[in-house]
Amino acid sequence: MRIVDIREVAVPLQGGVANSVVSFDGHRVSLVALVSDVVRDGRRLVGVAFNSIGRHAQGGILRDRMVPRVLGAAPESLCGADTGLIDPARVLAAAMRDEKPGGHGDRASAAGAIELACWDLLAKFHDEPAYVTVARGHGRSPVTEGVPVYAAGGYYHPGDTVGRLRDELSGYRDAGYAAVKIKVGGVPLAEDMVRLEAAIDVLGSGSAVAVDANGRFGRDEALDYARAIEGYGLRWYEEATDPLDFDLNRQLAEAYAGPIATGENLFSVQDVKNLLLFGGIRADRDVFQMDAGLSYGLTEYARMIALMGEHGVDRRSAFPHGGHLINLHIAVGLGLGGCEAYPGVFQPFGGYSDGCRLRDGRIRPADDPGFGLEAKSGLADEIARLTA
Amino acid sequence: MRIVDIREVAVPLQGGVANSVVSFDGHRVSLVALVSDVVRDGRRLVGVAFNSIGRHAQGGILRDRMVPRVLGAAPESLCGADTGLIDPARVLAAAMRDEKPGGHGDRASAAGAIELACWDLLAKFHDEPAYVTVARGHGRSPVTEGVPVYAAGGYYHPGDTVGRLRDELSGYRDAGYAAVKIKVGGVPLAEDMVRLEAAIDVLGSGSAVAVDANGRFGRDEALDYARAIEGYGLRWYEEATDPLDFDLNRQLAEAYAGPIATGENLFSVQDVKNLLLFGGIRADRDVFQMDAGLSYGLTEYARMIALMGEHGVDRRSAFPHGGHLINLHIAVGLGLGGCEAYPGVFQPFGGYSDGCRLRDGRIRPADDPGFGLEAKSGLADEIARLTA
Repeated sequence: MRIVDIREVAVPLQGGVANSVVSFDGHRVSLVALVSDVVRDGRRLVGVAFNSIGRHAQGGILRDRMVPRVLGAAPESLCGADTGLIDPARVLAAAMRDEKPGGHGDRASAAGAIELACWDLLAKFHDEPAYVTVARGHGRSPVTEGVPVYAAGGYYHPGDTVGRLRDELSGYRDAGYAAVKIKVGGVPLAEDMVRLEAAIDVLGSGSAVAVDANGRFGRDEALDYARAIEGYGLRWYEEATDPLDFDLNRQLAEAYAGPIATGENLFSVQDVKNLLLFGGIRADRDVFQMDAGLSYGLTEYARMIALMGEHGVDRRSAFPHGGHLINLHIAVGLGLGGCEAYPGVFQPFGGYSDGCRLRDGRIRPADDPGFGLEAKSGLADEIARLTA
Repeated sequence: MRIVDIREVAVPLQGGVANSVVSFDGHRVSLVALVSDVVRDGRRLVGVAFNSIGRHAQGGILRDRMVPRVLGAAPESLCGADTGLIDPARVLAAAMRDEKPGGHGDRASAAGAIELACWDLLAKFHDEPAYVTVARGHGRSPVTEGVPVYAAGGYYHPGDTVGRLRDELSGYRDAGYAAVKIKVGGVPLAEDMVRLEAAIDVLGSGSAVAVDANGRFGRDEALDYARAIEGYGLRWYEEATDPLDFDLNRQLAEAYAGPIATGENLFSVQDVKNLLLFGGIRADRDVFQMDAGLSYGLTEYARMIALMGEHGVDRRSAFPHGGHLINLHIAVGLGLGGCEAYPGVFQPFGGYSDGCRLRDGRIRPADDPGFGLEAKSGLADEIARLTA
């Protein structure tokens, strides 16, 4: 198998929502296609993926550095010696040639899109859903009954009202989501508590509601919120503070008894190691949200999961950031705790295709080959344009 | 003062050298020009800077994200209310709008080039060398006698010999450099020790020679090298291991009594905080090499220096990575320990202009306005093309 071309395009997100830190107006995502020399039904087999959601398209890094490196590599150096098929880890290594250590930011998601497209290509080669390929590649059986899913919403909208939030969350509940997440930190604490109590009222229990501050709080505000929410028995308290402030995470974990979630802005095994060593992690409750598409792809992500295991943290504590088909297949393939969904926002990347079944708070991927991105409306058109 | 245009170009590095991890063939640097509405001698005043050396040009992030944000910001929001002049911290904040926390990689150097160009613009506005502007902006007096400088060389070249290394280092010594740094880790330990002993022989003392592994070593190899070099009383042992592996740095600091240098691949105050908290730092000897051009510019860099102070580390422990005019002006303006030089490599960015005086191991900037980049041969041509 050979990669004969790599195409990329920056696709705008639809939605116009904001969390407490950033607005997603004008936000774009890199959609990447690896064109192989394998011909099926008269067309070249193409692996497709994207760099998750939330950290910008990476066309510059892809075009200037990574695509030329992969296309310039000796083709056999990108394949498994025994299989003759593209090896995602080898493609990642080629994309990362002449990159210095450290600095795990934008390049991690550029590399992630390429590496994940390898998995889509392999799954399509085997004519199977990607979760099967992912599970087999890691010596596991996929979780065929699907995984728990929660609806991540409760963003701040222009002209927001609590009534609008209630309507939004009721819609998720009625659609079959048993748990939700809402944003906090974008308005004063007292207003956020009104929003939170409305959410708990709609869902029926604090244990069905998580809150997410997107890393906005300093120490004092993080602890103020911790005290304010302590009594509700929330599902989790997410990214209260700077994601790299491991010492502050430890202080928060000492002050807040409920589960703390973080990791969506850690993009390397080394950063996760620091969280595990210094972050005051409680292995019996805390939640890890690293996202393969933001962190060099599944090769690096699987190493993160293995490292968690070495530190006594079960893989079911992993709920990847990024509610989309790629992370659904990874969660099912690796047996993670579950995944998130962004109903109605971050289109065309967010959410799942019609063939994915949501029932009793769990979601099961459809049987489309690969990640099934071509089966998702909106995204299918973008892929068709990119690979035409 | 208004910024009316921002131009950027990716300029290839000349040299073709390699360290133990990466080759610099094909490496490019982003040269950025902020064009102001201030007219002097019939021409618009332009601030110029670049994103240091070593972590790639960032044209994509500049064009797609940061330049449109800065040019789209309300002009008065970019200026100091009292001065009416461009405020580097405000320009940085505009460039970083809608960026999530964490992920301090490529974007940090894109932002660094823009922020540093503000300092060049301000200095030119005041018709003074940038070190004067930098010192005044931080409530300090510049170190008018200049700062210590060492020659960073000893890269691995195709067809390398110890004789070539001796010739290279003798040249530095004869040019007035009292200290040098050579690479290690690119060949087996025994070969590196031959290189190191040759370097010590040329310079006359281990205390004049530092070694740099560029983050290549795992724990065992880092400790093997530590044992091998322990007896030479070296100037410092640089980036033995992954720059973000703070726990391993602590282990190394416990095993190696001499100075340890690191930080060139830490791009944010938060990463430096983690090094200070968890890295086993010995405030009386260790060396900090963060580089403003790689880490959001001088605004963030000065915060790093302040944080070091809070942890009992004197600013004279700071020797910025990146041997070029920008870091020379910063070292002189902030009173740092010194700076590095790359004689003969990394042109046109590396090294100093003819007006800078090297004597007795110290270097003094010339009196050209700003960073004086226009006075450096090779670089002057690139700037002329960019600002034509």
